Amino acid sequence: MKPVITLLTDFGHGDAYVGIMKGIILGLVPEATIVDLSHDVAAQDIRGGALILRSAVPFFPSSSIHVVVVDPGVGSSRPPVVAATGSALFVGPDNGVLAPAIAAQGGARGVWRIENAAFIRATVSCTFHGRDIFAPAAAHLALGVKPDQLGSPLATLHPLDLPAPRRSADHVRGEVLYVDHFGNLITNIAETDLGSFATQRLSVSMDNVRDIPMVSAYADGVLHCPLAIINSWGLLEIAVREGNAAHQLGADRGTMVTVSGGES
Amino acid sequence: MKPVITLLTDFGHGDAYVGIMKGIILGLVPEATIVDLSHDVAAQDIRGGALILRSAVPFFPSSSIHVVVVDPGVGSSRPPVVAATGSALFVGPDNGVLAPAIAAQGGARGVWRIENAAFIRATVSCTFHGRDIFAPAAAHLALGVKPDQLGSPLATLHPLDLPAPRRSADHVRGEVLYVDHFGNLITNIAETDLGSFATQRLSVSMDNVRDIPMVSAYADGVLHCPLAIINSWGLLEIAVREGNAAHQLGADRGTMVTVSGGES
Amino acid sequence: MKPVITLLTDFGHGDAYVGIMKGIILGLVPEATIVDLSHDVAAQDIRGGALILRSAVPFFPSSSIHVVVVDPGVGSSRPPVVAATGSALFVGPDNGVLAPAIAAQGGARGVWRIENAAFIRATVSCTFHGRDIFAPAAAHLALGVKPDQLGSPLATLHPLDLPAPRRSADHVRGEVLYVDHFGNLITNIAETDLGSFATQRLSVSMDNVRDIPMVSAYADGVLHCPLAIINSWGLLEIAVREGNAAHQLGADRGTMVTVSGGES
Repeated sequence: MKPVITLLTDFGHGDAYVGIMKGIILGLVPEATIVDLSHDVAAQDIRGGALILRSAVPFFPSSSIHVVVVDPGVGSSRPPVVAATGSALFVGPDNGVLAPAIAAQGGARGVWRIENAAFIRATVSCTFHGRDIFAPAAAHLALGVKPDQLGSPLATLHPLDLPAPRRSADHVRGEVLYVDHFGNLITNIAETDLGSFATQRLSVSMDNVRDIPMVSAYADGVLHCPLAIINSWGLLEIAVREGNAAHQLGADRGTMVTVSGGES
Repeated sequence: MKPVITLLTDFGHGDAYVGIMKGIILGLVPEATIVDLSHDVAAQDIRGGALILRSAVPFFPSSSIHVVVVDPGVGSSRPPVVAATGSALFVGPDNGVLAPAIAAQGGARGVWRIENAAFIRATVSCTFHGRDIFAPAAAHLALGVKPDQLGSPLATLHPLDLPAPRRSADHVRGEVLYVDHFGNLITNIAETDLGSFATQRLSVSMDNVRDIPMVSAYADGVLHCPLAIINSWGLLEIAVREGNAAHQLGADRGTMVTVSGGES
Repeated sequence: MKPVITLLTDFGHGDAYVGIMKGIILGLVPEATIVDLSHDVAAQDIRGGALILRSAVPFFPSSSIHVVVVDPGVGSSRPPVVAATGSALFVGPDNGVLAPAIAAQGGARGVWRIENAAFIRATVSCTFHGRDIFAPAAAHLALGVKPDQLGSPLATLHPLDLPAPRRSADHVRGEVLYVDHFGNLITNIAETDLGSFATQRLSVSMDNVRDIPMVSAYADGVLHCPLAIINSWGLLEIAVREGNAAHQLGADRGTMVTVSGGES
């Protein structure tokens, strides 16, 4: 059984760019299992791609190969890389998009520049490394090629700066990191950031919305009203029951969110 | 050969929620064949999801496992269920979304609550039963686990009320149930509802459009003009040849449609 | 190992039409490998579908079966066809959508009308040949049925007229053929059309934008400014670095583009 190869890009669905990457992979590994994570990352949105990747990787079989092409620097000096963690391989541009997912797995055990001509296409377009470098590299990894055969080692992976929440004795102040398809506002405040607060006294607020109730299921919220919840990413999320919180609350990435731990 | 698993959700394509469900399934059944029915059901649109499911199920191999996650009540008391018909298994929330497809197959032979901890994830998020309950349940069914191993039987499945057409001696009055990607207006009037009418005398009308000609192929209509046709669902559909009937005719779900059987 | 089957349609993602085609194929060929090229071709946009197909086919394994359903004439007299080249099979309506990809492979070695009832569905809907004719025909080809078993030979394939660039001693005048997901403007001017020009003296202009610099990587352009590049299709493309050229330059299909070869 070959490892799963996942694809995450900002290519959208209108062109055949994703299909072409699959054609290249299947030409090398006919029995490959390829899974789309998303191709609707906003064009060149490295942070959005990084967060989607981090949210998905823990739920894939070990040894999966995760290919990311969100690559505003395609054709520049940013190197194409492969990184190995204890349980997965990552292939993509070294622009930060891979970093949060890898950090969440305990960091990379090794990073290599993809440069060995034996494992990429003979002619490399300056505009489509997904086709000419990343897809063939991933396919060769699926065939059993070791990451260090792809090229020379790199000392470190390009990091991605994500804003961290600020915590005091009685509150945590963070911000919206990501808005999902339902308009749910996913913040950078983790369940663990709320550790010592009494859950029943938690009060969540944004600039223009106070006292958002903390619930443990969407269905426990009031219909069409805001609620706060620890979501499936393990992060604090502001949602509107059967509604779109981003639209209804006028919020977006960067909107500040405060959790108060009560006055006890 | 493992059975086909289909996925139908309102998750959209922007996040990795669908990919995560596939990761869970492939971790349990590496050789699974997974087919996307659609992930663009409008958020929490149970009726839309139910109609898409009903339209697709007849064309899948028998023993397919159909997973639906259109679930405004996630985390509430609505049970997650598996239902068996003579030719397929259905996995999803018991909120009506499964009912029309199952009714079209002659009804369920059994319905069970998914609750056996052996076949779901150890930690169940209140916001993502697709990942934690439905995907692992479907994977275990694909591995040969019997539906009654997943939990205790339920007497009935939650029904879905779909408006029925009203028929008289010389006409049928129904309504638009669903608008597809092309803007075609799919009604609740089945070919069989028109049984005794003489096809060549049929006259179709909506509130603001009279005498829509009945044709047997889109190409038989007049370019950019409305036409009525029995479509691939076996239902009466109002379309505009090489155009968008919903936009052009100002119609939507609920728009009334009348078929007159002629004056013979 | 069965050949890859690719699907390219204008069905969008909201309905289950694509999933239904996959259900039909998997019912006949359970081990089929099916790849989506795109389902977001604009409704009935034969030229757009033809260009996407042409861009993708060269990157698939030989013997792949490419199924295209962009079919405004469904149910009319346009025949459903299978065409064979030296390295692939093509299945779709004979309306021109297949022609450019086949021409790029050196032309068809044979074209046959799909009409043998043994290889299509017993009941053929007038509105969904993708389900009733094209998907089962492709599945049977994947099982080893020869194209000439599907029906009688046709002398020629319906051509598609694509505008050709006009070349003089010192310039080439072409037009935008296709706008991709990033807003990149893909022209009908091929790298080979610029053969004798000195690359360092090339000057690219559109009606309202002069002296667009020719670069060899997006990252060599000026941020948010237009650039010209030979893209991954081998065609001249006008892009905006980290921006959307179509929006920013007010350009669309048909916008004229001139390349001057310098004054040497």
